[in-house]
Amino acid sequence: MIAEIIAVGSEMLTPFRQDTNSLHITSGLNELGVAVAFKTIIGDNREHLTDAIRIALRRADIIILSGGLGPTEDDLTRECVAEALGTGLTRDESAMELLKKRFAERGIAMSPNNAKQADLLHGATLLQNRSGSAPAQYLQTDSGGYARTIILLPGPPRELKALFNEQCVPLLVKNLPPNAMAKRLLRMALIPESQVDARTAPIYQQYSDVETTILAGSGEIQLHFTCVKPTLEDAQARVDEVAERIEREMGDDVFSAHGESLEEIVLLMLGMRDLKLSVAESCTGGLLSQRLSAIPNASRSFHGGAIVYASEQKENLCGVPWDLIQQKGAVSEEVARVLAEGIRERTGCSLGLSITGIAGPAVTEGPDAGKAVGLVYIGLADGTDTQVKEFHISGDRDRVRLWASQHALEMVRRMLL
Amino acid sequence: MIAEIIAVGSEMLTPFRQDTNSLHITSGLNELGVAVAFKTIIGDNREHLTDAIRIALRRADIIILSGGLGPTEDDLTRECVAEALGTGLTRDESAMELLKKRFAERGIAMSPNNAKQADLLHGATLLQNRSGSAPAQYLQTDSGGYARTIILLPGPPRELKALFNEQCVPLLVKNLPPNAMAKRLLRMALIPESQVDARTAPIYQQYSDVETTILAGSGEIQLHFTCVKPTLEDAQARVDEVAERIEREMGDDVFSAHGESLEEIVLLMLGMRDLKLSVAESCTGGLLSQRLSAIPNASRSFHGGAIVYASEQKENLCGVPWDLIQQKGAVSEEVARVLAEGIRERTGCSLGLSITGIAGPAVTEGPDAGKAVGLVYIGLADGTDTQVKEFHISGDRDRVRLWASQHALEMVRRMLL
Repeated sequence: MIAEIIAVGSEMLTPFRQDTNSLHITSGLNELGVAVAFKTIIGDNREHLTDAIRIALRRADIIILSGGLGPTEDDLTRECVAEALGTGLTRDESAMELLKKRFAERGIAMSPNNAKQADLLHGATLLQNRSGSAPAQYLQTDSGGYARTIILLPGPPRELKALFNEQCVPLLVKNLPPNAMAKRLLRMALIPESQVDARTAPIYQQYSDVETTILAGSGEIQLHFTCVKPTLEDAQARVDEVAERIEREMGDDVFSAHGESLEEIVLLMLGMRDLKLSVAESCTGGLLSQRLSAIPNASRSFHGGAIVYASEQKENLCGVPWDLIQQKGAVSEEVARVLAEGIRERTGCSLGLSITGIAGPAVTEGPDAGKAVGLVYIGLADGTDTQVKEFHISGDRDRVRLWASQHALEMVRRMLL
Repeated sequence: MIAEIIAVGSEMLTPFRQDTNSLHITSGLNELGVAVAFKTIIGDNREHLTDAIRIALRRADIIILSGGLGPTEDDLTRECVAEALGTGLTRDESAMELLKKRFAERGIAMSPNNAKQADLLHGATLLQNRSGSAPAQYLQTDSGGYARTIILLPGPPRELKALFNEQCVPLLVKNLPPNAMAKRLLRMALIPESQVDARTAPIYQQYSDVETTILAGSGEIQLHFTCVKPTLEDAQARVDEVAERIEREMGDDVFSAHGESLEEIVLLMLGMRDLKLSVAESCTGGLLSQRLSAIPNASRSFHGGAIVYASEQKENLCGVPWDLIQQKGAVSEEVARVLAEGIRERTGCSLGLSITGIAGPAVTEGPDAGKAVGLVYIGLADGTDTQVKEFHISGDRDRVRLWASQHALEMVRRMLL
């Protein structure tokens, strides 16, 4: 059973916009045991779209179209599906009533254009859209002797997701062989993908019924495991088994056994030990704080800190002696140490974490002149002891900043293990 | 002249990965006056891919394939293009030599698989890849009586971009009618898209030779103008004319007339006036600092500040009296005022900017209990005067935080106008 997703809209053929709806639809279909074999992106063009639907009818069992259900002349999905199937559209009275009601409730006059949003493919089921004017349509039909399922969804992601999850998935479940998908996600920080693959492939390759996907990026390796079986229990047992064997192999390198982010894990570990963390950020300029504070209820364990982007602020906000900055440079083991201790003391927190480094461009004057772009010092003070580590991060400014924040979080996690 | 882009690779049919190469290719083709009419994403499947290429040969003049040029059995693009064209592949001796040299330089044994990377379509030009082992191919051919240009590019974005920009574009230019594209980008913050469209449509609709794209999101509206003409001068004159008329209509709402981001503009305006800015962030937790410090050389005008995420830190780091927080709540006009003044004073900067608000979830105890999620106060102190504004931002935690940082930057910009 294979599917094709057709995203309709000329804006997705520009350099500015991308189809992202298909990721959500793919995830939902995969959970039902259906693979997506084709994705097509097509403009608001009657001939191109009708032809693309004809092609899809030949090669896929399930065809899901997103977009082109609005009221304007450019919205052609309904008409093109009807033409490709050689069938017709009928104005649905109940859909018309709902449209009129929707406009009346908002006190807006319904333009005559909108009426075409009530046009239903022959034999299709209308799926009511609670957050927009375009209803979705679900059709099971026969095309050239083959059973085909055709779904029309509106383009706005919020409407599409609600309609797909709440109304299409239950209809698909009824018409598909019973299948359940289980998932697990292991996450590791800051180790090379090749190393992870070399150590884990001998394990996951033994599980031919479990699909393993390794994703690397942003200083992190993710191992996604999925398994489809007639029952969820059987599928879950398989992904759990492979995930647990890989966890044993990789040990403490695995920071998350159920998909949580590194910042979530650090906050959780701090919370369990009733510790409060504050930070002093120089080259990352707020990125670390931003990541921690993006987690709801972070304030239990993350208190804030100082952005000491300019050297003067290292003195003003964390009490780093100006002489020390002049002697050693702002990017130095010594300054990282005093920053971590200074912010810990000024905030009254249990742990102080500091980052100072050269994210790029290169520094050409002052005490840090000539130090390499990517040189980063991270300090962690707990009141008794302060550890400082030196890192050399390759890549551009954004990458240096992101990896520095990743190293800082990982230093806290390893300390709390 | 229309193009189809075919992205090859099973990973792009999962929920985890997306084709992004096509955005870069589209931008390059558009500049040559070529529109992309179709995008197809297809797995590493011989039958599916060959069929997709046959379809593309029928409907597009230029066909660009990315991916599937590696050495493994799954890498099928060369073979499938040859099959769809009914032509053959020849092992190219010079390409073989380059491959061998590449492996020798790295001290790695070349596996026999790699040899197929030297297989060239009959009549194609080989384009040497300086950063990977897969060369690209450029072929002009005749398919069923129609002239077709077929380009094969490797999937890794860095290799693809270099090969496309440096080698394919010059070849395409030679074979296409002379055309040049001019672009302009106007950006506005925090005004509704409908308002922008109502005021600007009467202007841009007069320019049928200029393509106008309005993008809204993240507290910002972008107006992209592009125009293709035989000469760049003519094209530039047209986009400049429409952009300047729209700038006059929208006035100060336009923060950027040439595409700069809001944080770049704020830093530029601060720099021109030799002013230093520091910030005190509560609910945004570092997001504003992070945006400012992401711009290279920001430290000339952005000094840093305090992340006062926990209430205690508002007292510790910015000197907000604890009594005031108890009486008025941390999310109050009064606290926003003292935060802005406090951070300005402690950092010795010319301007102090503060953000305090409820990003969600709702506060259930303490002096801020019951205040609405999305309530945000922003303070701006310049040493003589402190202005505080109240905002009500709808949406989830991420949106409240992002819009609050946008409002804060916009407050600084308007003050400096």
